[in-house]
Amino acid sequence: MKIFAYGIRDDEKPALEDWEKQNPEVTVEYTQELLTPETAKLAAGSDSAVVYQQLDYTKETLEALAAVGVKNMSLRNVGTDNIDFDAAKELGFNISNVPVYSPNAIAEHSMIQLSRLLRRTKPMDEKVAKHDLRWAPTIGREMRMQTVGVIGTGNIGRKAINILKGFGAKVIAFDKFPNKELQEEGLYVDTLDELFAQADAISLYVPGVPENHHLINKENIAKMKDGVVLVNVSRGNLVDVDAVIDGLNSGKVSDFAMDVYENEVGLFNEDWSGKEFPDPKIADLISRDNVLVTPHIAFYTTKAVDEMVHQSFDAAVSFAKGETPAIAVKF
Amino acid sequence: MKIFAYGIRDDEKPALEDWEKQNPEVTVEYTQELLTPETAKLAAGSDSAVVYQQLDYTKETLEALAAVGVKNMSLRNVGTDNIDFDAAKELGFNISNVPVYSPNAIAEHSMIQLSRLLRRTKPMDEKVAKHDLRWAPTIGREMRMQTVGVIGTGNIGRKAINILKGFGAKVIAFDKFPNKELQEEGLYVDTLDELFAQADAISLYVPGVPENHHLINKENIAKMKDGVVLVNVSRGNLVDVDAVIDGLNSGKVSDFAMDVYENEVGLFNEDWSGKEFPDPKIADLISRDNVLVTPHIAFYTTKAVDEMVHQSFDAAVSFAKGETPAIAVKF
Repeated sequence: MKIFAYGIRDDEKPALEDWEKQNPEVTVEYTQELLTPETAKLAAGSDSAVVYQQLDYTKETLEALAAVGVKNMSLRNVGTDNIDFDAAKELGFNISNVPVYSPNAIAEHSMIQLSRLLRRTKPMDEKVAKHDLRWAPTIGREMRMQTVGVIGTGNIGRKAINILKGFGAKVIAFDKFPNKELQEEGLYVDTLDELFAQADAISLYVPGVPENHHLINKENIAKMKDGVVLVNVSRGNLVDVDAVIDGLNSGKVSDFAMDVYENEVGLFNEDWSGKEFPDPKIADLISRDNVLVTPHIAFYTTKAVDEMVHQSFDAAVSFAKGETPAIAVKF
Repeated sequence: MKIFAYGIRDDEKPALEDWEKQNPEVTVEYTQELLTPETAKLAAGSDSAVVYQQLDYTKETLEALAAVGVKNMSLRNVGTDNIDFDAAKELGFNISNVPVYSPNAIAEHSMIQLSRLLRRTKPMDEKVAKHDLRWAPTIGREMRMQTVGVIGTGNIGRKAINILKGFGAKVIAFDKFPNKELQEEGLYVDTLDELFAQADAISLYVPGVPENHHLINKENIAKMKDGVVLVNVSRGNLVDVDAVIDGLNSGKVSDFAMDVYENEVGLFNEDWSGKEFPDPKIADLISRDNVLVTPHIAFYTTKAVDEMVHQSFDAAVSFAKGETPAIAVKF
């Protein structure tokens, strides 16, 4: 059996080598290049292709892959919105993705960023870097003293709650679909407004569906405590960044961590150093002491990459054997 | 009743105002200056002095305070090794300190720094600051995937263990005086050597007594896993910094966080920006991507400062009433 993988990054190689050791009967070839109508021919003779890219999987690309006999395609990531499913169906493709790789990776990042904002590590690090070793006035706040509002208590939100409990913080939560265990613990408030009114810090773990669009907006920020700390590692469209900037300017919002941004495509995961930065709002946020911007890296851990590689290659083998892996995409 | 306080910093003022509100019968006066033979006279007419300084409380200083009728002295911090206790005894002083203000402050700092090292926030922040928004190759590791060795399971170590459990990390612990509950949980290994052999990361919570001097030295580092992560927020003399630098250079030690340093007096809590930095070793560590240096700030939170102010002023009142507060120092 032979699998051909596209877009393999250096940080994926340890996981890939590990998978190869566990599957000596499978021949693996790969390229750093992405899958395009041109590179499709590299997969000729393979049973399955393994892929991961923001670039569209167009009809032309899928046809080129089918033309060299490859109709099994396993994504190493979750997002499938860049696939032309009509073409895939017509051509008879089997497709899988990796819907869950490491909820902890994302939960941990959100809580690390929250703890850093409270502890003011950014201004402290800057002082130390320039050899100013005075601690005052860069005083920190403790996680355990905070009432933290967790919006969304799915896989990731629940991991974040566990971390908060370890710190000894008070957790209040809101979800339209409450979790039974958390309900028994009495962690839920009845309305978002109650959460806004009580929380010293708020972190989001809800999907970017239309009803959640700009959940954090001017109106809702006005309902929050003065000096609230906001964290968004979930979806960019949950936050009206202009409203947060206004809040930061007035002091209503004391700190903000963002790992996602509604206009992130084409901005994040690019190197703008030495070039004109195309988004003045984000440049402003990056420059602030009380804001932590990260470019959609919450998922990006060795464990998550390991899962993405292992699950996708396992699925590729399943397809090649004529089986349907549990993570096959239905379309 | 009147209390005079020395060395009051801006960050202490909210806590002080809070205490004054709760104790309207007490007149509080204060200065930002430290207590010296010259400033002692500022306390004339007061029932107690409240102090906090690294500067020695010499015989001359204590005599000057006694000369203006003040023989009650309440420290806002824990350390009493800069007091001339012989002179204090001879002059009939009552002295208190604040032995416990916030174990959580220190435990949280240690775990935040560990999580940051694992997540590589320092190089990621540096990339973002210069507008390089590519995530690869700055991949993080997850707290939950680590076996963390906790050396010392007193107040602070146990708080750190709670945080680690919240993250889902595997905890192994060592203490010469084991805690019963942790023993029942089976967290202890029998020897430090076992802990060194098994731990992916090691964090210290033991006192700086002679037998712990250079607990982290060349010999013990050699017993650790390749790529071990080291965290010291406890006492500077626990770590042989030269041995850690060798470990960092060879890759044996992958990351290091230090909040304390055996030669920190005269170096930390000073502003060296724009001046010649007197310690090339620390300058080197500060410049490394995989090292986080903080200048003895683990204790420095609003909650801790609150406790230091409230407890010391309460003790000062007790002394003035002829009582012996629970935190009186026996000498």
